[in-house]
Amino acid sequence: MVAIEKILQGSPLDAARLITLLESGDPAGRQALKALYPHTGRAYRIGVTGPAGAGKSTLVSRLIGGLRGRGLTVGVLAVDPSSPYSGGALLGDRIRMQAHAADPGVFIRSMASRGRPGGGIGRNVREAALVMDAMGCAVILIETVGAGQGEVEIAGCAHATAVVSVPGLGDEIQAMKAGLLEIADIYVVNKADLPGAEELAAMLASLAAGRRSGPKPPVLLTVATANQGVDRLVEELLALRGALEADGRMAARRAADEWGLLREIVMEMAARRLFAESPGLARLREELGRRAVDPYTAAERIVAAVMGRPWD
Amino acid sequence: MVAIEKILQGSPLDAARLITLLESGDPAGRQALKALYPHTGRAYRIGVTGPAGAGKSTLVSRLIGGLRGRGLTVGVLAVDPSSPYSGGALLGDRIRMQAHAADPGVFIRSMASRGRPGGGIGRNVREAALVMDAMGCAVILIETVGAGQGEVEIAGCAHATAVVSVPGLGDEIQAMKAGLLEIADIYVVNKADLPGAEELAAMLASLAAGRRSGPKPPVLLTVATANQGVDRLVEELLALRGALEADGRMAARRAADEWGLLREIVMEMAARRLFAESPGLARLREELGRRAVDPYTAAERIVAAVMGRPWD
Repeated sequence: MVAIEKILQGSPLDAARLITLLESGDPAGRQALKALYPHTGRAYRIGVTGPAGAGKSTLVSRLIGGLRGRGLTVGVLAVDPSSPYSGGALLGDRIRMQAHAADPGVFIRSMASRGRPGGGIGRNVREAALVMDAMGCAVILIETVGAGQGEVEIAGCAHATAVVSVPGLGDEIQAMKAGLLEIADIYVVNKADLPGAEELAAMLASLAAGRRSGPKPPVLLTVATANQGVDRLVEELLALRGALEADGRMAARRAADEWGLLREIVMEMAARRLFAESPGLARLREELGRRAVDPYTAAERIVAAVMGRPWD
Repeated sequence: MVAIEKILQGSPLDAARLITLLESGDPAGRQALKALYPHTGRAYRIGVTGPAGAGKSTLVSRLIGGLRGRGLTVGVLAVDPSSPYSGGALLGDRIRMQAHAADPGVFIRSMASRGRPGGGIGRNVREAALVMDAMGCAVILIETVGAGQGEVEIAGCAHATAVVSVPGLGDEIQAMKAGLLEIADIYVVNKADLPGAEELAAMLASLAAGRRSGPKPPVLLTVATANQGVDRLVEELLALRGALEADGRMAARRAADEWGLLREIVMEMAARRLFAESPGLARLREELGRRAVDPYTAAERIVAAVMGRPWD
């Protein structure tokens, strides 16, 4: 049994248990989220992403401090790139966040992004965020590493995205240019005491100015290790929420996020039915194995056998 | 109309057109692949992957030369990491392969890995490889950049995988350790004339020795720019095919690849039906928008409305 009441009261132990249950795909987790869902929809989800070595974990730790100083409860979801095979998450950096481990107003959870070839990390992130929302987190920080497809997908689960870069990672910028920079609401140049920080900030500002649609993201400079610039960043992030709500972007992003979750649930349920072991499927697999049928015809047969006609 | 006969005769223009058609999701492409399918299943697909800067494009160009020297026709599929938003592929490096552009025994195709949040690059790679197979390519080189989830997915489309690394990319190794190195059949240390090559080779050899199951991958040293070590690599890759066929791994990999393609086709067909616009779906979207229904209940309603009972 999932302790719904305890989660609503903010119990970190019960929230963590439910997130684990959801990650394992247990149907009891889904039932619990149905019950919790009416108590969600209030949290403000902020994605914090950028290349490895940008100092994101330190920055997130400082953001927690800044948000707590304003009386806000904080959930942190740290998504780790890791092998689809080993299952090991690279958790070393997370230790820096442990400064907040004793604070009952802070809930921290790590999640490995392994082994989801058909997407799927989005679902786990969204579900964990719903649990944190239900337990009362006012702000949820979703930290991801890298600049790949997965990070863009995860950014789609947040209401606002801060992209963190650092001076001296020239090659990374090109990759980021193509993807994450385009979805950023705020650019952060961390380690801004290093040489090249001003040039990087200028480059980001010119990228921002060149954006075809929507507001131009501000460029903020931080030195997370020294807690410099963090207060300003917290202010910008909180002000951004108001701006997103005022111009309708928040409503659109919430709708896209909810639709994204629904889509993932539907596709998982459909896959389970379409590929449920059966004599028909076994026969088809055998035919495919000896190339007696092509994959397109085989696919049509599976869909015809398992699915009815569309509704209405 | 797709010119099936011309593709079977090896026409690069018609093959390229069909691959474009398949990438666009046009049903005519699928019909053409049904017709071509009986003529496929002979090509040997080799994945060549590793971090940016490892010299993979130069190495692939040399591999083309080595394979052509042995009278083998070669297809090359260069998968570029690129933005899901900009749509631009980073094709600069590909220019090095143009040395082979005039050779009718070589067919080169680039493919952007953009915009496929629910996976999907695997399907495009598999379908392009089937077209190259049908047009008569004896060996298909699938080149990918990076060490992310996408690369592991693409490696699943190949029959053999060579992972290329270079001395001096310390950080990359850790990421690779967790993922790609575990699926490699051959480790290549390129730019082996650089300092640190021996150490890297020794590290890879010890990783290989520590593998829990299957044959230990050999570690080969190459200097692609000087064509050093390439002949040996070609020999190893061709010998590997025999080994894979002898111990049953080839049959298992082919079956997994075909099943993977079938799964992707089924899921795409199912998604189209499940989310076909209809009054019922519009109603549900509206209810979800005002949080009158939770995404789990909504998903159950979609699946119940659109899907019948499993077969048999």
